[in-house]
Amino acid sequence: LLLAHPHARLAACFATDGDFRLADALPELTAKDVPTLPVSDLNKRDHGFDVVFLATPAEVSADLAPKALDAGAHVIDLSGAFRLRQGASPERLARYQQWYGMAHPRPDLLDRAEFGLVPWSKGSVRGSGGGPRLIANPGCYATSVLMALLPLLKAGLIDPNSLVIDSKSGTSGAGRKAAEHLNYTEIAEECLPYRIGKHQHQPEIVEALDHFAGVKCEPFFTTHLLSVRRGILSSIYAKTLAPVSAGDLDLAFQEFYGDYPLVKFGKFDPPKGRLAPPWMALKSVVGSARCHIGYETAGEKLYVFSIIDNLLKGAASQAAENMNRLFGWTVETGLLAREGVL
Amino acid sequence: LLLAHPHARLAACFATDGDFRLADALPELTAKDVPTLPVSDLNKRDHGFDVVFLATPAEVSADLAPKALDAGAHVIDLSGAFRLRQGASPERLARYQQWYGMAHPRPDLLDRAEFGLVPWSKGSVRGSGGGPRLIANPGCYATSVLMALLPLLKAGLIDPNSLVIDSKSGTSGAGRKAAEHLNYTEIAEECLPYRIGKHQHQPEIVEALDHFAGVKCEPFFTTHLLSVRRGILSSIYAKTLAPVSAGDLDLAFQEFYGDYPLVKFGKFDPPKGRLAPPWMALKSVVGSARCHIGYETAGEKLYVFSIIDNLLKGAASQAAENMNRLFGWTVETGLLAREGVL
Amino acid sequence: LLLAHPHARLAACFATDGDFRLADALPELTAKDVPTLPVSDLNKRDHGFDVVFLATPAEVSADLAPKALDAGAHVIDLSGAFRLRQGASPERLARYQQWYGMAHPRPDLLDRAEFGLVPWSKGSVRGSGGGPRLIANPGCYATSVLMALLPLLKAGLIDPNSLVIDSKSGTSGAGRKAAEHLNYTEIAEECLPYRIGKHQHQPEIVEALDHFAGVKCEPFFTTHLLSVRRGILSSIYAKTLAPVSAGDLDLAFQEFYGDYPLVKFGKFDPPKGRLAPPWMALKSVVGSARCHIGYETAGEKLYVFSIIDNLLKGAASQAAENMNRLFGWTVETGLLAREGVL
Amino acid sequence: LLLAHPHARLAACFATDGDFRLADALPELTAKDVPTLPVSDLNKRDHGFDVVFLATPAEVSADLAPKALDAGAHVIDLSGAFRLRQGASPERLARYQQWYGMAHPRPDLLDRAEFGLVPWSKGSVRGSGGGPRLIANPGCYATSVLMALLPLLKAGLIDPNSLVIDSKSGTSGAGRKAAEHLNYTEIAEECLPYRIGKHQHQPEIVEALDHFAGVKCEPFFTTHLLSVRRGILSSIYAKTLAPVSAGDLDLAFQEFYGDYPLVKFGKFDPPKGRLAPPWMALKSVVGSARCHIGYETAGEKLYVFSIIDNLLKGAASQAAENMNRLFGWTVETGLLAREGVL
Repeated sequence: LLLAHPHARLAACFATDGDFRLADALPELTAKDVPTLPVSDLNKRDHGFDVVFLATPAEVSADLAPKALDAGAHVIDLSGAFRLRQGASPERLARYQQWYGMAHPRPDLLDRAEFGLVPWSKGSVRGSGGGPRLIANPGCYATSVLMALLPLLKAGLIDPNSLVIDSKSGTSGAGRKAAEHLNYTEIAEECLPYRIGKHQHQPEIVEALDHFAGVKCEPFFTTHLLSVRRGILSSIYAKTLAPVSAGDLDLAFQEFYGDYPLVKFGKFDPPKGRLAPPWMALKSVVGSARCHIGYETAGEKLYVFSIIDNLLKGAASQAAENMNRLFGWTVETGLLAREGVL
Repeated sequence: LLLAHPHARLAACFATDGDFRLADALPELTAKDVPTLPVSDLNKRDHGFDVVFLATPAEVSADLAPKALDAGAHVIDLSGAFRLRQGASPERLARYQQWYGMAHPRPDLLDRAEFGLVPWSKGSVRGSGGGPRLIANPGCYATSVLMALLPLLKAGLIDPNSLVIDSKSGTSGAGRKAAEHLNYTEIAEECLPYRIGKHQHQPEIVEALDHFAGVKCEPFFTTHLLSVRRGILSSIYAKTLAPVSAGDLDLAFQEFYGDYPLVKFGKFDPPKGRLAPPWMALKSVVGSARCHIGYETAGEKLYVFSIIDNLLKGAASQAAENMNRLFGWTVETGLLAREGVL
Repeated sequence: LLLAHPHARLAACFATDGDFRLADALPELTAKDVPTLPVSDLNKRDHGFDVVFLATPAEVSADLAPKALDAGAHVIDLSGAFRLRQGASPERLARYQQWYGMAHPRPDLLDRAEFGLVPWSKGSVRGSGGGPRLIANPGCYATSVLMALLPLLKAGLIDPNSLVIDSKSGTSGAGRKAAEHLNYTEIAEECLPYRIGKHQHQPEIVEALDHFAGVKCEPFFTTHLLSVRRGILSSIYAKTLAPVSAGDLDLAFQEFYGDYPLVKFGKFDPPKGRLAPPWMALKSVVGSARCHIGYETAGEKLYVFSIIDNLLKGAASQAAENMNRLFGWTVETGLLAREGVL
Repeated sequence: LLLAHPHARLAACFATDGDFRLADALPELTAKDVPTLPVSDLNKRDHGFDVVFLATPAEVSADLAPKALDAGAHVIDLSGAFRLRQGASPERLARYQQWYGMAHPRPDLLDRAEFGLVPWSKGSVRGSGGGPRLIANPGCYATSVLMALLPLLKAGLIDPNSLVIDSKSGTSGAGRKAAEHLNYTEIAEECLPYRIGKHQHQPEIVEALDHFAGVKCEPFFTTHLLSVRRGILSSIYAKTLAPVSAGDLDLAFQEFYGDYPLVKFGKFDPPKGRLAPPWMALKSVVGSARCHIGYETAGEKLYVFSIIDNLLKGAASQAAENMNRLFGWTVETGLLAREGVL
């Protein structure tokens, strides 16, 4: 995404392996001229980078982010290191440890970090007086859920205590690692529930619902692994506080996403002879930076479905949106050229 | 299943296509000696068949079932023709039309039919005085859901008004038909919600919860199509009426399934390094007649997962169980030999 | 591809269904302003289109191509209607009928058409004096095979009588149509040989080997359907006429593809711990306009593997290359922006 | 297979992990009473086992097989340790090292071992006077290839110098191990050539063609990994020595397989509207002990396709056939009950 961005230049890659070359990892791209620097250079004052993206595990990000900030660069972190807030209180730190399985090494930074959910976080950009910023790029599941729930909760249409979230993800969400249980033989022709009520994106969802919509609630939340490479589907169930029509729902989403080009929403209305509207198939978002949200009502029951590409809106393209936002470019800058390839 | 059954003999196939030969449809089986009869023979008084299985669309079953019954045979119908009860009242008939999209041609038979959910229907077998019986073999989704929910509702552990059912099925549930939207190109790497709140198994679930557990409720219910050939996973969410432990849940399931060999239940407790317990992978039930049920609690939240092979426990093997029940054989007769092939 | 092309403008779509709107078919694209015209307008003299792309069955293309040519437009046909040459001789017409199962309705056009294999067809562009051109866009299998074989045959490295071609394709090659045998349930977890020695791309390959390399031969050729959506792999076997090294092969490919940016070739040399070089995975060409070719030798045995995206280099992007060639733009114009999305 | 065998009893499992319990590994089976013994017990003289199956890596089998033989048990080894013959000559040992990447620790045993390809190896059973036997169960690829090629070569129908073998396997052939390149994300939607001309089953094929058919040749042989869990398809290409009809081919296969119930062969003749005959789909052999072979001719070209379940005929069920053979039971004993589950 950075190689094709009209205003940004990918100046260097940091890697622990000095032999790493970006052009090898992405053979289809022309990335020949991107140098690889040692990680120890991250906090060199004079490296002159405007923004550093950390695509590292949470414990590594917690170590590297302050170094990059000290060197004067903005940091956009794609891990879970800085997604929970108010970390300095003992209760919150215990909460971090509960969900992430590690003591947070730099709790002071938890309150400095902004949760970069685009377009919701636009109002939370800090004043011009400050130094470099630390942006926590949201988790993939959390993004798919929050994009669908925030308009409904802000508009006061649903009962927060009735929420059930059944999320399903493609396997690329697990990253690249050797693990027998991620082998094709194990995953193909399966749909596996996992981390029942224990996924680390759960507290992130809870905090963001509170932060952006002022709603405190503890939804049911389960994750499933699909025999799919890319894409997340979150199926969300809620009871409405009063009868709502598809038109009411359209208005709620229109109010919050009217100016945001990377979302599509509407009634889950399949054309004749189809199971689902074509724009609610994973293939309609995989390879793109967008989020699609479809809904259906039946009496007091509201069904909402939200799909994203876990690697793009759920990670890389939202990080690019955050960079765009940081530098005052429209959020979709550099993200529309790749539409429609699949 | 019938070809390998120790007590039953597959005497004939009825087919509209006179050239149909079972040995062609199942080339791997030795079914050479099974004759094909014209459907018009179904109501011949002297055909002498003890039981007729109808694996036909609902409208065809509604036509053929009374003919077979008139000829003195028990009927086990695998379609949705006779799964809703009390059909003779105008309200119920309207309900049938709403969910199945057709007026029921023989509403008088709706009350004659038994809903054959094994082992729950064992108590509902009619007295020896009657004539041939009509058994409605339950729907695949309904089976996966009811097997998990009935013990919990009978034991009074969960709030029926909190129920959310998120079901996922393999594509073989759609049967064999030419349809662009079922093509590999469309289905692979997807997870498609469909018939949101409109699936015809919903009223069947509602009626069976009332019939077997005496509970009236209207759960959220959604179906999804997986890029999987065989298997159903129903993820079920409920609030408990009081704190429950995994041990309480074990006891509830033990009470109702202690004597039933085709079910396995327990805490959803993955071994180290795995996402899920091996017995909760679809591959552990695909090819078998069994249902596996795993559960997890978090405060008042109860998560229950139920898996079956949609073509076996969700259709053919449950039909065989119903036959076994009808003739006084243990329900698993002829169904265990095929375990463990996958 | 046309919507994103820097020099072309997609002026209209022709469709038999007047309600067809491109924006519906490609919801992720902004194609709102592309009008739909009736097919009968194709031969209106004043429509003013510079080039018409026909993405229609062979019999429809055979009907529409002359109409568009008469109206003064160049035609790039993506069907098999015009891929075989010298159609006017009775022998050739019988050959067309043999492979395509229909009598060719306009044999006079077979000799007018150019076979648009890029970059090989660059030398065959007809003189400026002529009228509008008819370009037969090559078949997907044929493209994958010819791109690999032509340099080897031109360089005289292999014995044409030893050729065996084992091609495998994703299911999107079968197009969008309802067919039980293309259902997910039938295709998943399969690899199905089909049209053994009878695929209609076979004579196209034979003719092109003769036309571009001056070699007459009749290779073994088989096609297989993979449980894959997009991508073709052709595994090609040949005996070398003399000992050849990987360096010799590099030189042969370099000679013919040195100036062509949409190809990558090299020894099939997997890095440590991998089965295959990353650039020889289908995912490295799916979504791109490129062809990757890997080779390995063992004594007199030469193994060559060629991969393309059947929908892009095997169809749409090669059609765009032909348009670029027709108008004097570099062939890759408009085709590189989409790299690297997968 | 052993748990369901009518004449054999699975007396114990040997495992390095003392906590291993067969019932855990196969939760769907009733294997509660099978004890786990330490591997060091393998050579106890008094263990009294009639046959030991080794499902271990080649280097482990080479160590354990002589111990089990010394203790008086027959050994059926499923690894590649004993598949190459005449190991004691320096040339052969170098050959073993070339293909297996290790010096053979017990070359003296290479000539003692029989290559257990059923039904071909039936004639090679040694006289009753000998001690316990060592049977090398053939490799999965080799089995699929040899079953198809041996009748054709024995009947003298094809030119051995023209042979090209393009094999494709499901991922379960790679066994259970953690490896990034075997992850679902890497394998799904792919078809990856690997070990081009270097697969260790190649010398096994070459030796067996010589041993069973008296033909010395060095075919092209390539393996591909499919996005499929189970099943092997070998596509084989050969030139015929004289014109042959499908009938000639039927006769050749009938001659050698007339008495063998676990094979099916015939012309590759798809019924109307299908790509391939149903019995040539992988699903028709997966879960079964059988091999299906389909063929087609075009002039001097012969196309042969052979499919097996790599885990059954390619491993476990052929091992059971070898046991049956060893004890004088018909080879299919215990292997037919599981047919037709998929």
